[in-house]
Amino acid sequence: MVRRNIAVEGVLPGGSYTVTIRADYPNRPGMLGNVASIIGMAGGDISSIDLVEADRSRMVRDITVGAQNSDHARKIIDTLKRIPGFQVRSASDRVFLSHLGGKIAVQNRIPVKTRRDLSNVYTPGVARVSTAIALDPEVAWTLTGKGNTVAIVTNGTAVLGLGDIGPQAALPVMEGKSMLFKEFADVDAWPICLDTKDPDEIVRVVKAIAPGFGGINLEDIAAPACFEIEARLRAELDIPVFHDDQHGTAVVVLAALLNALKIVGKRIEDIRVCVCGVGAAGTACTEMMQAAGVREVIGVDRYGIVYPGRPEGMNPALEEYARRTNPEGGPGSVHDAIAGADVFLGVSAANLIDATDVQRMNKDAIVFAMANPDPEVMPDQIEGIARIVATGRSDFPNQINNVLCFPGLFRGVLDVRAREINQAMKLAAAHAIAAVVTKKELSEEYIIPSVFNRNVVRAVAREVAAAAHATGVARRRRKSRPAVFL
Amino acid sequence: MVRRNIAVEGVLPGGSYTVTIRADYPNRPGMLGNVASIIGMAGGDISSIDLVEADRSRMVRDITVGAQNSDHARKIIDTLKRIPGFQVRSASDRVFLSHLGGKIAVQNRIPVKTRRDLSNVYTPGVARVSTAIALDPEVAWTLTGKGNTVAIVTNGTAVLGLGDIGPQAALPVMEGKSMLFKEFADVDAWPICLDTKDPDEIVRVVKAIAPGFGGINLEDIAAPACFEIEARLRAELDIPVFHDDQHGTAVVVLAALLNALKIVGKRIEDIRVCVCGVGAAGTACTEMMQAAGVREVIGVDRYGIVYPGRPEGMNPALEEYARRTNPEGGPGSVHDAIAGADVFLGVSAANLIDATDVQRMNKDAIVFAMANPDPEVMPDQIEGIARIVATGRSDFPNQINNVLCFPGLFRGVLDVRAREINQAMKLAAAHAIAAVVTKKELSEEYIIPSVFNRNVVRAVAREVAAAAHATGVARRRRKSRPAVFL
Repeated sequence: MVRRNIAVEGVLPGGSYTVTIRADYPNRPGMLGNVASIIGMAGGDISSIDLVEADRSRMVRDITVGAQNSDHARKIIDTLKRIPGFQVRSASDRVFLSHLGGKIAVQNRIPVKTRRDLSNVYTPGVARVSTAIALDPEVAWTLTGKGNTVAIVTNGTAVLGLGDIGPQAALPVMEGKSMLFKEFADVDAWPICLDTKDPDEIVRVVKAIAPGFGGINLEDIAAPACFEIEARLRAELDIPVFHDDQHGTAVVVLAALLNALKIVGKRIEDIRVCVCGVGAAGTACTEMMQAAGVREVIGVDRYGIVYPGRPEGMNPALEEYARRTNPEGGPGSVHDAIAGADVFLGVSAANLIDATDVQRMNKDAIVFAMANPDPEVMPDQIEGIARIVATGRSDFPNQINNVLCFPGLFRGVLDVRAREINQAMKLAAAHAIAAVVTKKELSEEYIIPSVFNRNVVRAVAREVAAAAHATGVARRRRKSRPAVFL
Repeated sequence: MVRRNIAVEGVLPGGSYTVTIRADYPNRPGMLGNVASIIGMAGGDISSIDLVEADRSRMVRDITVGAQNSDHARKIIDTLKRIPGFQVRSASDRVFLSHLGGKIAVQNRIPVKTRRDLSNVYTPGVARVSTAIALDPEVAWTLTGKGNTVAIVTNGTAVLGLGDIGPQAALPVMEGKSMLFKEFADVDAWPICLDTKDPDEIVRVVKAIAPGFGGINLEDIAAPACFEIEARLRAELDIPVFHDDQHGTAVVVLAALLNALKIVGKRIEDIRVCVCGVGAAGTACTEMMQAAGVREVIGVDRYGIVYPGRPEGMNPALEEYARRTNPEGGPGSVHDAIAGADVFLGVSAANLIDATDVQRMNKDAIVFAMANPDPEVMPDQIEGIARIVATGRSDFPNQINNVLCFPGLFRGVLDVRAREINQAMKLAAAHAIAAVVTKKELSEEYIIPSVFNRNVVRAVAREVAAAAHATGVARRRRKSRPAVFL
């Protein structure tokens, strides 16, 4: 199994972690040589030195140094600080440098350079556009950015593998997500980080801000609150509401599963799936697989197999889940649940299963171990035991990544001004992603396309739009009526 | 008094109103000539004809036609529709064309083209940035866009001269405002149009969304709700909250007044001001002028002079206003209030006063007639009667326009990460705007700089930042501590 290079925790294999140190030191002959030799002795590798400013007494330089990792870089900096008169103004690595000042900005789509521009885009011209929308609210889809704009809404309670870090610390993730929306699908997505954990309040806020948006992407909101919030917003808003951690994951998992089943030659109706982790993602993956034909699912969480009336760790969402899964009932651990399964789907935590567990699965076992950043079982551990392995990571084959879904899905939704995202549209997205991998290309190590495969967005957008039309939730007619704006 | 060209209601003097008609008609010899001569007979002037698509049976062309105004253009289109087989697919003028698809977009500040980019700006790299913010929330100002981002919040209850047109119809105005923030001050401002009129709800929503923003610009929210909303948000948030209709207007009015007083040679302490219109703008202008030294203000609204205990049309905000103004008390009309005033400040409605009223003002009368789009009195009517006249319009000299304030003000505020916008900062902004007009340039027809004068933003930002430091509300130290992000 080939493991590719990747920056995990800022460490790049092959020593390509670099830190840029802004150094302010006395302007004396020999100083730079002294600095350079101290860096060398500390095991650092200077890759560039740039002058920032200088006068007779001081020099300010940016020194870029290769190190093993961030701890090593910190040690190099501490050593440098011992040089008399040497000050570190700032030090950042590549990841932090790329975050300075944020990752997204507003861009004007037309110029405002002249008086005439100003009277076009602002007063007095804009008054006519506002009047047109007041008379017919539907034209807001044409005459404003609403039709291309999505709110990325989070309260920061379930961010990546970090958990409840709050709305402000979640902002870099939402900015990153906004970048992906823009880069892959030309969707304008703005982060809205909410300082509240109250589901009622979140529903109220999202409903209040909805007029300016064509869709709502809920993100990194913890279960079970996320279920109620999404359900209520879907019912009360006339624009699509999509909790990506649930449904984005479910769509991509199903895409990978459809292709994996082609390889092992099993019918989806016949398989047994063990779902490990029954939070936002696990619940949605279960529903999605069931919608696609899976009959037998056993869910497991930290209290073991989920079954109706379990004495520990239940809530209304889990009771509902228990009723819909696990036809054989009864308690047990993940090790019991995985025995005899055709598919293990992990959306839980690191190292929960091992090779022995996978050995007890059915022939041609399919293991999707998607815990972040460390999977439920490392792919190398089950090489030759499982037939097909996928993870959420980019350093193993078969990366199951939401980026394969949400850009194309929202592109399709906005293109037809859909009122909602229904199951038919999600199934269409999953089939579109799966179909990007051709029969000829399909193999145990290639069941899901790369996130950089540009065909994915186009295919997903097209199929989602078609499904929206077919299910009657597209607001835009295929043939648009004449638009006269005067 | 020179009146300059301007597009009001889409009409440009000199016949430069143009409409672009997308025409779909049978592909037959002589059709285009027929269309052209019908347009000519209807008084239209074809300026260009572009081919969009064609096949053997149909032609689709964009025909751009000069007309007198939108009504004339509509008549031309109606005439064209009578040609057998001729269809109008769409027709828009310049203003509407510039609004298609909205006026703003999201822009990525760094590329996401490669796997390495992706791991920098999204997972796994972003997790380190989020962790750094979770450990020290203040670094969100450095590592996200928060420090350059403003929410433009409206509920669409008092939009331009249009009144309560709702949040969606307000969106084009907010997009226009966002463009001006970007163009003039490189501030990233995103429109948030709220579907609620409840002040409690608005306060809750703005507090909830605040973590991602460095400042809040309240816009076009009707009085008296705007007073309570702003006051509560100012008290409860640690970022600046600024209702532009109130304070932006007040800052620019004060700037114009300071320069006007230089010309007439009166001291600000000695003047008597009649304020006509005591809504958001009138109240804030009064407070601002009083902060700058004005002692005698008489406020007038639709019920006449505002005085304590007036039987009609009072509310708590007006009672407070009455206590702080009008030292002589007593009822009366705007015609009574203007008599003996040195300054008339109109922020009300069209044609409320006339030349006779202005004749009863003190010598060297200053008239700021700012009702939108038609002023309280047209400048031509009082030429030679008032010494100095200003309006909100760009087709007369002395345009009092909020664009002179808000971009530079927020630039300064964000530059120092101010916690609030206080009176000292607003006074600094007014003085900075006034000072852009030099003593040598100052004249009756040039008391306020052009909105396109780039010196304004720089001067306002600098002085506002200095005032924030001086009053202890700047979060950023003048000399920043070393930032080590690894």
